[in-house]
Amino acid sequence: MTDTEAPRERTGDRTAEALRALLDGRWAGVRDTVRERVRGELFAPAAGLSMEEHRARVADQLAAIARTEVPGYGFPAEVGGAGDFGASCVAFEMLVADMSLMVKVGVQWGLFGGAIEALGTDAQRAEHLPGVIALDLPGCFAMTETGHGSDVQRLRTTADYDPGSGTFTVHTPDEAARKDYIGNAARDGRAAVVFARLRTRGEDHGVHALLVPIRDEEGRPLPGVAIGDCGPKAGLNGVDNGRLTFDRVRVPRSALLGRYGSVAEDGTYSSPIDDPSRRFFTMLGTLVRGRVSVAGGAGTAAKAALAVAVRYGDARRQFTRPGGGGEEVRLLDYRSHQRRLLPALARTYALHFAQGELVAALHDDRTGERPLDEHARRELESRAAGLKAVATWHALHTAQTCREACGGAGYLAANRLPQLRADVDVFTTFEGDNTVLLQLLAKALLTDYRDAFGDLDTAGTVRFAAGQVLEGVIERTAARSLIERLVAAAPGRGDAEELRDRGWQLRLLEDREEHTVAGLARRLRRAGKAGGAFAAFNDAQDHVLRAARVHVDRVVLEAFVAGIDRCGDAEARRLLEKVCDLYVLSLVEEDRAWFLEHERLSGTRAKAVLQAVDALCEELRPHARTLVDAFGLPDEWLAAPIALGAEEERQETQMGALSES
Amino acid sequence: MTDTEAPRERTGDRTAEALRALLDGRWAGVRDTVRERVRGELFAPAAGLSMEEHRARVADQLAAIARTEVPGYGFPAEVGGAGDFGASCVAFEMLVADMSLMVKVGVQWGLFGGAIEALGTDAQRAEHLPGVIALDLPGCFAMTETGHGSDVQRLRTTADYDPGSGTFTVHTPDEAARKDYIGNAARDGRAAVVFARLRTRGEDHGVHALLVPIRDEEGRPLPGVAIGDCGPKAGLNGVDNGRLTFDRVRVPRSALLGRYGSVAEDGTYSSPIDDPSRRFFTMLGTLVRGRVSVAGGAGTAAKAALAVAVRYGDARRQFTRPGGGGEEVRLLDYRSHQRRLLPALARTYALHFAQGELVAALHDDRTGERPLDEHARRELESRAAGLKAVATWHALHTAQTCREACGGAGYLAANRLPQLRADVDVFTTFEGDNTVLLQLLAKALLTDYRDAFGDLDTAGTVRFAAGQVLEGVIERTAARSLIERLVAAAPGRGDAEELRDRGWQLRLLEDREEHTVAGLARRLRRAGKAGGAFAAFNDAQDHVLRAARVHVDRVVLEAFVAGIDRCGDAEARRLLEKVCDLYVLSLVEEDRAWFLEHERLSGTRAKAVLQAVDALCEELRPHARTLVDAFGLPDEWLAAPIALGAEEERQETQMGALSES
Repeated sequence: MTDTEAPRERTGDRTAEALRALLDGRWAGVRDTVRERVRGELFAPAAGLSMEEHRARVADQLAAIARTEVPGYGFPAEVGGAGDFGASCVAFEMLVADMSLMVKVGVQWGLFGGAIEALGTDAQRAEHLPGVIALDLPGCFAMTETGHGSDVQRLRTTADYDPGSGTFTVHTPDEAARKDYIGNAARDGRAAVVFARLRTRGEDHGVHALLVPIRDEEGRPLPGVAIGDCGPKAGLNGVDNGRLTFDRVRVPRSALLGRYGSVAEDGTYSSPIDDPSRRFFTMLGTLVRGRVSVAGGAGTAAKAALAVAVRYGDARRQFTRPGGGGEEVRLLDYRSHQRRLLPALARTYALHFAQGELVAALHDDRTGERPLDEHARRELESRAAGLKAVATWHALHTAQTCREACGGAGYLAANRLPQLRADVDVFTTFEGDNTVLLQLLAKALLTDYRDAFGDLDTAGTVRFAAGQVLEGVIERTAARSLIERLVAAAPGRGDAEELRDRGWQLRLLEDREEHTVAGLARRLRRAGKAGGAFAAFNDAQDHVLRAARVHVDRVVLEAFVAGIDRCGDAEARRLLEKVCDLYVLSLVEEDRAWFLEHERLSGTRAKAVLQAVDALCEELRPHARTLVDAFGLPDEWLAAPIALGAEEERQETQMGALSES
Repeated sequence: MTDTEAPRERTGDRTAEALRALLDGRWAGVRDTVRERVRGELFAPAAGLSMEEHRARVADQLAAIARTEVPGYGFPAEVGGAGDFGASCVAFEMLVADMSLMVKVGVQWGLFGGAIEALGTDAQRAEHLPGVIALDLPGCFAMTETGHGSDVQRLRTTADYDPGSGTFTVHTPDEAARKDYIGNAARDGRAAVVFARLRTRGEDHGVHALLVPIRDEEGRPLPGVAIGDCGPKAGLNGVDNGRLTFDRVRVPRSALLGRYGSVAEDGTYSSPIDDPSRRFFTMLGTLVRGRVSVAGGAGTAAKAALAVAVRYGDARRQFTRPGGGGEEVRLLDYRSHQRRLLPALARTYALHFAQGELVAALHDDRTGERPLDEHARRELESRAAGLKAVATWHALHTAQTCREACGGAGYLAANRLPQLRADVDVFTTFEGDNTVLLQLLAKALLTDYRDAFGDLDTAGTVRFAAGQVLEGVIERTAARSLIERLVAAAPGRGDAEELRDRGWQLRLLEDREEHTVAGLARRLRRAGKAGGAFAAFNDAQDHVLRAARVHVDRVVLEAFVAGIDRCGDAEARRLLEKVCDLYVLSLVEEDRAWFLEHERLSGTRAKAVLQAVDALCEELRPHARTLVDAFGLPDEWLAAPIALGAEEERQETQMGALSES
């Protein structure tokens, strides 16, 4: 529209393409497939549907997806799938046109089908998975109970084996043990993978999974199965969450998904894993894809929200510039607006690279391309937990910021932001409550720490110099040699340019993590001696959560650095370097109290970080549109009129009216 | 249920009563009236309504409210009101049973009626207000346009006076100038106070308000008035927001609300205020009640969300305590859970006192009990702007935190949190975008600063020692002598007990404000010399917003201190002192980077602040339930099953099932 825009558009389009190719990454073809398949009237975002209308629409969309190659991505070739773990994660995360569809896809093929795949025997897979893929057998993943969500080990639904009839009796002892919040249960599911305590020959073998039919062909609940409806929710109302109560429902012995535990006809229990606790966590570990996918889906919600808000902020004007000849200022030219959106944009980029790296590593392990040892696999599972927490909170915060940045227009359902925000909200809770996940990650970090340093009894083992690399704790995630080179080449303290030196930044986050984890280990050790373990861990909660967070920050930065290294386009790379600077320095700005308290930054230096964030906002502002275009989200999915030219059109008619008057 | 609970309940009830009396405060009778009137089937929170059902329900509720004393509170006795400004604010803020009703009440009697009252002549009030109060004339407040919301001075709807016919022609020149987001417009409004540029005799006199009929008795739009519907929104779907477009609509000369500007038959314009800019801001200033009420309403949303989450967290158990004999731990016994809810609870208390103080001061000015000079009135208006921003962001953040703290249950509409969160969201945008309001406040602080210190050209005027009190900038808001006494008696630095010394805390926040505002003044002055005023102000945005925020923090603390001083009950007072400590120290914790950078706290001291917040969480945990009960929100309004015993019942049946098995 004006002269200042033209150059951005010319150079921006090419750079956006280069960025998009980099972001699309290894599964670019899958992303394009989803872009191609999810279009047209059936998939257009629709605002203002009633819950029933929304559920029906999403069910129709799911049926349409079932006719594509998407459902097969994650399943083995033997049952008609593509055996492509990464593709299944990436396809899921792209379904932002309606996040209810995203979640419904995740429930059917990720959780329900994924549980049969991960926990079932070969025979069970061959029997059930073709129907699951084709959506002939719509199902649920019935793990959470009303009384126990986070503490899965204490689920209370029971499955008692009766050798006489060769059946299990699945039973809900009381309301606290009913299955709750179960997606696909209230309306569409015909079967459920039910997690229940397996009891046989008078012994409780802990939580196992059984495939239990819940509805007949006509959709009526089967005898003994009571199905409730969770009713309207804050978001995701296209997903039919429900409650399942089992009143002594009998299922055959073959209903037990038998990979990690089975019961012989006479009731004898056997498992390839002897230790019940290890068995349980191995079973849960196979379900890691859910967490990974949720983090990816949250990332796409953040991208979509930013695409809407940045486009609007780039077009919308408010207040005149003093001495500016009456021309009104674009929102994105205000520093306050930049500071709301651009650090969030930078973090969205950073998390994208971390997500991509995690998906690739899990894929290579699952497919056997680069199998991992158990320790490395456990590390990835912990990382998935931490990344899920950080990514979903980030997405929620970003969607909210974008809503506010669009003012009243951002509150209207037509502009997509309300739905994105409300939908992504529960991503912080499902597939593991974020706080609980961070605690898990912190415990894993402490275990690594103990493994590396042994018992902390003697004071000698816990003294560290700043900057010292603890190989045992800090496991570099990608591009190991590149990162080590950068760290080694980092300037010493006090260099004026160091704030934007990548090696310095890497070392700063690394040092923070080492110090935080080591300090936590010392603290728990000390406190553990004085009082009970619970009190010690509870008193240190803030420290615990912090250790997990700073670990994720460091891992994410390393993935970002590795991602930039893969970028062949010079212009795109220059831009990414700044985005990465903004990512790190806005993190440091947020946490500068810690850096000051621990004398990692002087007061002067901390103020310089603030100024650097300001400067980066200004430098990136002209490229904001390019950066969101690079996400490659079709206009059809964004759908928000304010992001698709409505504001520009209004300004033109206003200009016309003003010049006439 | 257990021994540990019994003592809390015995002492808690009495303390909760004492606290409630203090919180109910000066307009306790009004609060009780609303508690009495808003009950029963008609007012019960209802989840899952369609937009049309919700609008109809709220319209019925509004009609019921119209039959009570509530609408009259804010109007003068001459037109049948009570002339009780404070009562109108307090009644509004209590309507949390459905925030759509709260907003609809605010639109009809606060904004629409309030504009006629504030901007109309005596004759206009006498003519219209009785019908407004009785809801015979349902109306809208049509200020915001699609193209201009925050920048009200640039509204573009026109009102041209024609001496020939003695009428104004109200006109919308183009889509950017249509009235947008207008409450009561899409369905119910019959008239609107329309803000338009008044033009007569070839001269534009700026924005004025006219009373324009928009629908006939049958509810059909009048000729020339096009009424659109904003459709579904993130929340508040019981409010019928719409769009108004005027196509050369003629209204009589008497339609102009004439208190601050009128047009004679021949088209001569006159006003009691000569300066157009001062006139405009005087007109806006009379509308301050909207902002104040919104802050209060947001506060009640935060209270309701906390009441639900604290009650649930006090009952809900998850994970066993190692060595705890299998008993599961209550959520609120986890430090991480305490840290999510208790600082938010403390801030909610603090803001309640600040809100009460502001309402009382405005009331006393309006009713003439303690009239203010223009400077003091302007200060209150600025404070209202800042408090609105801080209170609404706090409420939004708190509602979200409470939702997450209740896990999946918090995501279900039945448990109220989704609606509270979604409704209060737009409170951060309407009645002034929060960021814009903080900028307004900061400008006012800078003006005060300039007034107090004159031109900043000479370096000599801008040198300050830490701790020096700038009387010109820091105007104590309440209990002036009490606060000065506390500050004077504060211990010096380094005293081990100082973190909980009120005088030290007051001085800390005061010092931060002085330093921040003085630094901002210097910075703008310096930058203003170097470049343009816009660039200078824009570059300093972060500093600008920060100045406003730290000002509000200090004002809120002083109000809290004054509030505690009014508390006659020793037990309640002891509790409040801790709540106040938690309020201040969690603020300091959040902002400890600043205190470190500016050498107000040492690293050791800053860590002690973290520990003090932890300790206060632990000390307040047993009283959390008491503190939320003291809000005096009837169970009927909370309505959430998880807050009303459902969780306890489930645990009892679970205990029963476990002891049987």
